[in-house]
Amino acid sequence: MQTRFDIATAGPGLYEFTPQVADWVSGTGLLTLFICHTSASLVIQENADPEVRVDLQNYFARLVPPTTDPAMAYLTHTYEGPDDMPAHIKAALLPTHLSIPVTDGALALGTWQGIYLFEHRDRPQQRQVIAHLA
Amino acid sequence: MQTRFDIATAGPGLYEFTPQVADWVSGTGLLTLFICHTSASLVIQENADPEVRVDLQNYFARLVPPTTDPAMAYLTHTYEGPDDMPAHIKAALLPTHLSIPVTDGALALGTWQGIYLFEHRDRPQQRQVIAHLA
Amino acid sequence: MQTRFDIATAGPGLYEFTPQVADWVSGTGLLTLFICHTSASLVIQENADPEVRVDLQNYFARLVPPTTDPAMAYLTHTYEGPDDMPAHIKAALLPTHLSIPVTDGALALGTWQGIYLFEHRDRPQQRQVIAHLA
Repeated sequence: MQTRFDIATAGPGLYEFTPQVADWVSGTGLLTLFICHTSASLVIQENADPEVRVDLQNYFARLVPPTTDPAMAYLTHTYEGPDDMPAHIKAALLPTHLSIPVTDGALALGTWQGIYLFEHRDRPQQRQVIAHLA
Repeated sequence: MQTRFDIATAGPGLYEFTPQVADWVSGTGLLTLFICHTSASLVIQENADPEVRVDLQNYFARLVPPTTDPAMAYLTHTYEGPDDMPAHIKAALLPTHLSIPVTDGALALGTWQGIYLFEHRDRPQQRQVIAHLA
Repeated sequence: MQTRFDIATAGPGLYEFTPQVADWVSGTGLLTLFICHTSASLVIQENADPEVRVDLQNYFARLVPPTTDPAMAYLTHTYEGPDDMPAHIKAALLPTHLSIPVTDGALALGTWQGIYLFEHRDRPQQRQVIAHLA
């Protein structure tokens, strides 16, 4: 079966949607989540300490700075803003899809694992994630 | 069902093969593409502006420079050429497989998403990608 | 069908478990491996020259240094040790899951591909990997 999760974002960072996914799955099978965008990602990360999400966001902001940074002067795809091409690079470095086994109606996540949309653009966005379970 | 896509490359960069994949899929299910190599990757990226592909290639060439670069002097696996170990590192950083839902015969790709083989070696290569749809 | 692989680690690095996985699979389908942790990863890498694994480990140790490194002073999630937050970052950069087609009982791996758990923590760990085949 398939469905779509619509997730609104308001700037770069990690947005958890584990509860929506957990509510939707049933039976035993394999869940796949696929994000229909090339400037946002899906990641599984620690859901205990919110500092982890802040640190992740700050690490990737340094690994792939905006094109206003002189170190990124070689980038050419800049007309959609200084966060555009870095967003595409982060979307290559981080997952476009996640596959998670489902057992007796429950996601096979570890104790500290949550499912996150990682937004890479500055402006608010409406993001679509397709879910497939079989 | 399974098939194999054979893709010839001629140096580092992104090679699109979305049309071959779109032609092959049918019905509703989950498509998985798996690349049988540790020096090339599979990525989903923007298919509109070709500058994005050039910028991606240039970013990863800087993130993982050839072993002729003094910054990479600590690498030891160098006898297959200065592009060999960096290719393995890029193959760890970027996906070996992609899973994409298929609905009524169509890939659930967003408007701007294309499927690419990302070649990391300098010399021409014959690459094999296994496709599984179920 | 599903099973669980338990893998003991003793410090950062790549631990191969291809034989255990190859022994378990059968028939034709898609195998998915999912690691239930946010401080270790699953990667497919060259299984020929052990130098590749050492070089990979050293590359990622430089890309994401411990929080004792002044360059990482901006990280805040540090109370579980200098290897903790870097482990989460590596777990975002590297795969949480792998999907590999299986054909007539054999993994569709290329000649030089092996399946590895990539440990990011310093202390010994007991890691769990869920396998799903359908």
